[in-house]
Amino acid sequence: MCICVVKIESASAPKAAGPQAEAQEWPFSNRALTLENNILREILKVTDIPGVISFAGGMPAPELFPYEGLFEAARTLLEGRDGNALQYSLSRGTHELRKWLIEYCPSTVPLTEEDVLVTSGAQQALDIVGRAFLERGDRVLTSHPTYVGLIHSFNFYGADMVTCRTDEQGLDPDAVEKELKRKSAKLIYLVATYDNPTGRTQPLERRKRLMEIAAHYGVPVIDDNPYAELSYRGAPPPSLRLLDPEWALELKTFSKMISPGLRIGWMIAPRQYMGIFEKVKQSTDLHTNTFCQRLIHLFCTSGKLEPHVAKLCKAYSARLDCMLAALEEHMPEGITWTKPDGGLFLWVMLPEHLDAEPLLKAAVAEKVAFVPGRPFYPKADSGSAFRLNFSNQPEDKIRDGIGRLGRILRKQRLTA
Amino acid sequence: MCICVVKIESASAPKAAGPQAEAQEWPFSNRALTLENNILREILKVTDIPGVISFAGGMPAPELFPYEGLFEAARTLLEGRDGNALQYSLSRGTHELRKWLIEYCPSTVPLTEEDVLVTSGAQQALDIVGRAFLERGDRVLTSHPTYVGLIHSFNFYGADMVTCRTDEQGLDPDAVEKELKRKSAKLIYLVATYDNPTGRTQPLERRKRLMEIAAHYGVPVIDDNPYAELSYRGAPPPSLRLLDPEWALELKTFSKMISPGLRIGWMIAPRQYMGIFEKVKQSTDLHTNTFCQRLIHLFCTSGKLEPHVAKLCKAYSARLDCMLAALEEHMPEGITWTKPDGGLFLWVMLPEHLDAEPLLKAAVAEKVAFVPGRPFYPKADSGSAFRLNFSNQPEDKIRDGIGRLGRILRKQRLTA
Repeated sequence: MCICVVKIESASAPKAAGPQAEAQEWPFSNRALTLENNILREILKVTDIPGVISFAGGMPAPELFPYEGLFEAARTLLEGRDGNALQYSLSRGTHELRKWLIEYCPSTVPLTEEDVLVTSGAQQALDIVGRAFLERGDRVLTSHPTYVGLIHSFNFYGADMVTCRTDEQGLDPDAVEKELKRKSAKLIYLVATYDNPTGRTQPLERRKRLMEIAAHYGVPVIDDNPYAELSYRGAPPPSLRLLDPEWALELKTFSKMISPGLRIGWMIAPRQYMGIFEKVKQSTDLHTNTFCQRLIHLFCTSGKLEPHVAKLCKAYSARLDCMLAALEEHMPEGITWTKPDGGLFLWVMLPEHLDAEPLLKAAVAEKVAFVPGRPFYPKADSGSAFRLNFSNQPEDKIRDGIGRLGRILRKQRLTA
Repeated sequence: MCICVVKIESASAPKAAGPQAEAQEWPFSNRALTLENNILREILKVTDIPGVISFAGGMPAPELFPYEGLFEAARTLLEGRDGNALQYSLSRGTHELRKWLIEYCPSTVPLTEEDVLVTSGAQQALDIVGRAFLERGDRVLTSHPTYVGLIHSFNFYGADMVTCRTDEQGLDPDAVEKELKRKSAKLIYLVATYDNPTGRTQPLERRKRLMEIAAHYGVPVIDDNPYAELSYRGAPPPSLRLLDPEWALELKTFSKMISPGLRIGWMIAPRQYMGIFEKVKQSTDLHTNTFCQRLIHLFCTSGKLEPHVAKLCKAYSARLDCMLAALEEHMPEGITWTKPDGGLFLWVMLPEHLDAEPLLKAAVAEKVAFVPGRPFYPKADSGSAFRLNFSNQPEDKIRDGIGRLGRILRKQRLTA
């Protein structure tokens, strides 16, 4: 099917590709030229070496993917020759999936299909939010640390990301209010439930207080909420949207519940604003891939989602317990870590004089990997923390890997 | 699996959702508030009414989708429990697909995986180009008319889109040079082969001249090339990238060859720039959906692509012939149309005093639809043209629909 072109007189002869050989460069925008790599994805290239026990990625366990259920869905669509499953579709998402989502998602106000926009993963939803709100220099208030994908996406729009005091109970609403009194902001962003990177969860009282502040100051809150279903110690507090559907915008995804490779996420926002998000979505990629929306819809309506998520929770909960026990056993004094109730991550805090980046080098030499903390801060920070993922490795590897980390850390000078 | 929240004291009571009820609005950017709808997608909402013979969309024939081949690929991945097919993957695209693409795509210089970026359809590739190059006010030179998706995507970046003289042979390179002499531009954009909306193809000599101009003035040329494989009268001239791989950026897609609902496209650009496009891609949606990339890779490597495209060409070629014959039979004097050698569209030109928009109203009343020409011009234009798609309707409907259009047009005053 190759449109073979045997020989062509080129309009200009190809030159050597070396960096010095380029007499004239393509005229990229300054914004693109100064865009940094998503540091996390760069780190993953180093840490995902075969043989390394990696706690670095945020990846679901591949052996738990629901292969059978997705195959049955594919059979229905493809053996059934369902043309709509392979055709162009609506920018807001297929009717089938949105209809299911508004029944699935808890709400204190009646949801309609008009309240939902299907996106290519929650990362695209975040980018759509950035496109819809941000002009260069706009302030965005967030937790300290915060999600690395937020930093990467909003940097493109020239946002000034300001982190506010954050403790074991997550983002402190009083610190947010203090910052808003000082100077206005365009958005507030947080992962209120089983935070990435810390695993922390904001309790109900703080959530209520945060939404009061948001409404009072007129600042929408982006509640990035991919992990709420992965609950290992009972249900989490209600999402921010349930507390105030007028000032919260919730980002959701099937990446952790079903598969990240299908890239299906969604956002829920007040319907009077959805036309704006739809137009922004249209201008980026027309619509989210139809086939995976239909696969997921069939998987969910066949009643397979609930037992599948229960299975994930059982497995990940055991892995979390295993990691917590191994940390307890192997970590030297002076090192602390969070004890999440759900999600995929925990956060290890080192004595302040230690930096996690050189530690990662030593760890990779011992065939174990994590993500150093620095990329999770929009502005320079000490870097004396790192993130561990507990969903992607089986329990024996978790014990082995944390044991290796313990040995590396015991070689460090732990007191300043 | 619903995280049921039976009763919650809301931080603020929900208010009525009417437009006047909003005391305070969300602080969207001016850019988002002034973003227009993709007019084409709005028109499709009107024209895709059941019972209407629609020549409006740019949709492949659903009865020709390769259901069996895709199902076999899904079986291999899902029955084979291939975890990588459902997992996060590289921002540049999976190794498997890129490896196949560099063998599939003709080239005058050796291609490597580093020259290819997989995107969520060619529309996302276009948006990535906009993000990478454009700052507010930058000039982009293009054909007259041009692709509506270009206008919608680049409008977001505040591009000043300047159309240059275009005739039966497509974009006129001399007109491009004249415009560049007058004032510099950031990019040149065209669909050189089987243009959307006109169906026209730029001949080899014009292509060579255009690339000489591009290299001389240092302006990259975006060759949006989704239709080249749909050739009904022999192979088209070589793509612009084959004439000058240093100054052409080619956008490709499986949307027309396999399925638009899978949203898999790709771009080919000089590898020294690919790092910039990769970072831009990362910041928008991390990566393109893994599962559909793997599906398409298996479909292509199983040798099914070539016979499938041959089958499409046979069917679409017959539909094109049928539409051309019906136009010849039913159109009154004074109306002309293009005679494409491939692709999905032809372009009907009306006497200058006639406007296609009121005509569409009359047509929809007679249950036939097309896309009026105005949305294909970045700046105001007379609108005395419309686009017809010939791939989506079977031959009897084509004859019937063009007959209806002929009756409507014969009722118009055709001379000014």
